[in-house]
Amino acid sequence: MRPGSKVKARVWSVDGSRQRLRMDQIATEEPLEIRLLAGGETKTVAVTMRTPGADFELAAGFLFSEGVIAHRDEIGAMAYCVDVDAAQQYNIVNVSLRAEAIPDLPSLDRHFFTSSACGVCGKAGLETLQIRGCPVIPPGPVFETRVLVDLPRQLEANQRLFTLTGGLHAAALFDEQGAMLVCREDVGRHNAVDKLVGWAMMAKKLPLSRCAVMVSGRASYEVMQKCLVAGVPVVCAVSAPSSLAVEVAAEFGMTLVGFLRGDRFNIYAGRARIEGAAP
Amino acid sequence: MRPGSKVKARVWSVDGSRQRLRMDQIATEEPLEIRLLAGGETKTVAVTMRTPGADFELAAGFLFSEGVIAHRDEIGAMAYCVDVDAAQQYNIVNVSLRAEAIPDLPSLDRHFFTSSACGVCGKAGLETLQIRGCPVIPPGPVFETRVLVDLPRQLEANQRLFTLTGGLHAAALFDEQGAMLVCREDVGRHNAVDKLVGWAMMAKKLPLSRCAVMVSGRASYEVMQKCLVAGVPVVCAVSAPSSLAVEVAAEFGMTLVGFLRGDRFNIYAGRARIEGAAP
Repeated sequence: MRPGSKVKARVWSVDGSRQRLRMDQIATEEPLEIRLLAGGETKTVAVTMRTPGADFELAAGFLFSEGVIAHRDEIGAMAYCVDVDAAQQYNIVNVSLRAEAIPDLPSLDRHFFTSSACGVCGKAGLETLQIRGCPVIPPGPVFETRVLVDLPRQLEANQRLFTLTGGLHAAALFDEQGAMLVCREDVGRHNAVDKLVGWAMMAKKLPLSRCAVMVSGRASYEVMQKCLVAGVPVVCAVSAPSSLAVEVAAEFGMTLVGFLRGDRFNIYAGRARIEGAAP
Repeated sequence: MRPGSKVKARVWSVDGSRQRLRMDQIATEEPLEIRLLAGGETKTVAVTMRTPGADFELAAGFLFSEGVIAHRDEIGAMAYCVDVDAAQQYNIVNVSLRAEAIPDLPSLDRHFFTSSACGVCGKAGLETLQIRGCPVIPPGPVFETRVLVDLPRQLEANQRLFTLTGGLHAAALFDEQGAMLVCREDVGRHNAVDKLVGWAMMAKKLPLSRCAVMVSGRASYEVMQKCLVAGVPVVCAVSAPSSLAVEVAAEFGMTLVGFLRGDRFNIYAGRARIEGAAP
């Protein structure tokens, strides 16, 4: 089935001491593999986490803006890969070039890149994490609601560069009493989280099994994956999570909180770690 | 000289019909190359666009969270590379492993990846663009202020998925009268821009030399590079630009507008394309 650009999710909305279950819509995040075909050869150029929709435009635009092709006419055809099982079919775009052979690829030194030619889909992403030996995060600790709702204030107070420039992501690490251990800022969200994890590793604090991470923007697959590897049980975001972020949280026993603002927040997974969330 | 996490920039602040020059601070964006050293070998693992500061934590955290190392003790030492010229010195971190040889790297299927072992710095990034043959964008067209300040309203009105989910980036293409040609949304900012460029290429509208692109978040190097390749003269962002975004705009004759909200915006480069900006 063709993936939609949004999916429904069951969410616990918390407003002060009130908690209620409702249906919410979240943005779909799934990998797209872009393959080149020419002269009987096939080559994977990139795997990027994207929201399904306009996939052929994404493939064409990526190839052009990264310098793989210089003109529309170099493309003979674009089609979803049918040579895989149904779950992966709409996550692979085959771009047939008119050329006799696949051109030498420019060094794609940014962007997601893979040398693997195997199919991908959301599940494959999760399986990669399992293969790497990530255990499910064990239960506990429980965070009080008053601790959670205080995290955004502390994060903001420590966004020194953001205050000056208005142009950075932030990620901060908190203990279960809500005391901030470290805060890092970066133009890249994944870098801010890597800086936290690196700090913790060098300070011999891994795994971070009694901690919460709060990020200034959205919770993506990448943020969840990095927190999981570091053993973080609770991830909070000022903004929305993606579909794959929620899947990772549910699969690996993590708690995922989104739209944490004022007295309110949403719980997308792992509600048992939030005070007042009777089973 | 060690790069700071923010830099000063000369900015034209526009508020209604008033324009004034002032100094602003913008977040530094520069590449960091992470190199592994073991058994006399050297290998570049990743190049990531980052904000300088906590670079060793970033390198350590990246290596751990991406599964390259499993424990702090695998790292013997971390140091900036001194084997390059001064401009690049603080953009390369050498991580010496205790192992006899560089381990087989897991497939880094996300993140910025390069097989090049050469040094990088902001200038190198710009030189890459020049090497690829990107011409400087010629002067014109001129956008009226009333056209510019209407772009955010149009962008918001077309952020269909954002309205439902609160979790996506958007990018839209406008003609010089401010009519929207296409709007695309994605969990990845670069994907939203790639979708625009791909749409334009397939519709035979490249180069987009009479158009403006508006993005919902910040203007990064990546956004500017993709717009440059597509020939877009004017890039507008709801939020802040990075230092490298401003450099790309200045170097390639592009107009860069940030904090475009209400009647107000900042011009970071290419002021001649904004109405009322007397030379």
